[in-house]
Amino acid sequence: MKYLTLPTRYSAEGLREFCFQVFRRVGVQKEEAEIVADSLIQADLRGVDSHGVVRTAIYLKRIESNMINPFAKVEIESESEATVLVNGNNNFGSVVGTKALQIALEKAKNHGASIVGVKASNHFGTGAYYALKAIEQDMILLVMSNASQTMPPTGGIRPFIGTNPLSIGVPAGKQLPFILDMATSVVARGKLIVAAQKDEPIPLGWAIDKEGNPTTNPHEGLEGSVLPVGGPKGYAISMFIDILSGVLTGAGYGRYVNNMYENWEEPQNVGHFFIAIDINRFIPLQQFKNRMDQYISEIKAEPKAKGVNEIFIPGEIEHRLVIDRQANGIVLPAKVAEELNEIGKRYHLDLASYRFDQKIKREA
Amino acid sequence: MKYLTLPTRYSAEGLREFCFQVFRRVGVQKEEAEIVADSLIQADLRGVDSHGVVRTAIYLKRIESNMINPFAKVEIESESEATVLVNGNNNFGSVVGTKALQIALEKAKNHGASIVGVKASNHFGTGAYYALKAIEQDMILLVMSNASQTMPPTGGIRPFIGTNPLSIGVPAGKQLPFILDMATSVVARGKLIVAAQKDEPIPLGWAIDKEGNPTTNPHEGLEGSVLPVGGPKGYAISMFIDILSGVLTGAGYGRYVNNMYENWEEPQNVGHFFIAIDINRFIPLQQFKNRMDQYISEIKAEPKAKGVNEIFIPGEIEHRLVIDRQANGIVLPAKVAEELNEIGKRYHLDLASYRFDQKIKREA
Repeated sequence: MKYLTLPTRYSAEGLREFCFQVFRRVGVQKEEAEIVADSLIQADLRGVDSHGVVRTAIYLKRIESNMINPFAKVEIESESEATVLVNGNNNFGSVVGTKALQIALEKAKNHGASIVGVKASNHFGTGAYYALKAIEQDMILLVMSNASQTMPPTGGIRPFIGTNPLSIGVPAGKQLPFILDMATSVVARGKLIVAAQKDEPIPLGWAIDKEGNPTTNPHEGLEGSVLPVGGPKGYAISMFIDILSGVLTGAGYGRYVNNMYENWEEPQNVGHFFIAIDINRFIPLQQFKNRMDQYISEIKAEPKAKGVNEIFIPGEIEHRLVIDRQANGIVLPAKVAEELNEIGKRYHLDLASYRFDQKIKREA
Repeated sequence: MKYLTLPTRYSAEGLREFCFQVFRRVGVQKEEAEIVADSLIQADLRGVDSHGVVRTAIYLKRIESNMINPFAKVEIESESEATVLVNGNNNFGSVVGTKALQIALEKAKNHGASIVGVKASNHFGTGAYYALKAIEQDMILLVMSNASQTMPPTGGIRPFIGTNPLSIGVPAGKQLPFILDMATSVVARGKLIVAAQKDEPIPLGWAIDKEGNPTTNPHEGLEGSVLPVGGPKGYAISMFIDILSGVLTGAGYGRYVNNMYENWEEPQNVGHFFIAIDINRFIPLQQFKNRMDQYISEIKAEPKAKGVNEIFIPGEIEHRLVIDRQANGIVLPAKVAEELNEIGKRYHLDLASYRFDQKIKREA
């Protein structure tokens, strides 16, 4: 079938298969290609489009430039009863992260809890990807990662720390699980990019220009820095994530975490940090789930501010997006669809054949 | 010696001895009285006056009302290689916290890392008190605690979660250690109290009134709620601290953490959560310290915004206050000195005799 214009609506399964095939044809092995594709599509399903299939191009470019080594073995470098240091040897971040997570969960099951530090990794996608996998196994997970420089320290004027993300997953019973997944900036840099494209002002407090002055101009903000959430509090949390993920593991930290888009001389050397907790070692799992259900239902029943229809728990809005996008497909910006289409052509894959098909909708 | 007015400047050693003697005369045993006094005075030294000797009166009142049991045994309720559940049995929060910390540090030394949950505790003072003790033993510590209701969830209008604090301590080499100690609110409730006393407006974003409307009136804010730092991000972090400290340990959570000042029917049932990490299990301690020194010196050397004289690392400002207050004494608000003086009279202690003596100043 021929299309006059490229479709922009795709099924999650279609996009996952497309990305999987792309990575396979670059030579990535099956298990690794599945992880990377799955992690990208899950981000799109959850509405974190900045971490979705839009990243396919940069991942490919870094493989082609030998900045990511998809054949590297993810290795345990040292280990004690409760700790593991993992060397990612520069494989995909999501591959390294997924293997580190498996190690963390297994160790926590055996010893009650575990702490896994990771070095020599790359951008690992969303933290929620790992939090959800831990929840599936009834475990509590804290996961963090450092990132290349985008935010100044409090009092500074240029990027020094990353918007180092923190994600936490906690299972519940009948209620949805608790899934926190946040950058340590006031807002994602992506929001400035969107505002810049539309030439719309941004609220004061999101960013500073390159001289360190507060700005409402998104172009100036992009040339400058985004700001840490809560001022010194966000700065301190971001720094602590950098310490655990980078300083402690032997990965890069501060200026030594290389920018995925700008540095083509050496690998990123991103670090991650996982803390896994076996709930049963504290209270029986079912009792914990009942308490979580009680807690969540009490929060949701709280009186609401004017104009607020519902109080959400962390992860709930994303969960609804997943349901919506699984039913109705993922709509890509035309530019992203075109970029994926060009990638597909190089590997004899027709992106349009993975489009969302109205006929498979149950409601239709 | 007689004073026409009560002195307000006291030496840290003097205040520590005064508080120690007060608790001893109430019947608290030596070790416990030392911990409680030390924790209060350290808060005053670090400039966290809201958690300092000003709390002596409420602690005494709760002992006298059988809301705190200073004779309770702090017990290990269950244990695995990497985890411990501690039952505080309603002793002082700082006594329970200090014993839980000792357990956490010892376990981390033996097994690489440890996670200690605590239930049936009370307000445990500042998190920095524990972070500093861990740093003295070259360990990394994350410590958190839940607290009674003061903040609404995002979209809510009345207090549901506490300003649940998070503290993190990381040793460095020649540089000062990293010490983060923050509440999950935009600002401490104490700042509203100060503004209310002066009848000064507060910035928009600090608090909402009891109908949930943003307010610049500190009186309305105190009747309403303080707000989480960074909106939904602070709400989520506070909730996660409540989950780990309360839901997981069997302590109270949400509305089941009782208010120290208002509830005289039953103990607070506060929960805490400690994560201790033995640095050597990841990289050699000296190498870690060198990396921390490098990191900190690079941050401090960053170009500064107009009007900024110095970039601080978390804990640095408090460290300078300690040096100043150790040299020049701690100045108490007249009201606090009077309250302590009244307490002293009940136990035949003369507060004024613990005043700061200019003669012991080396500079004099």
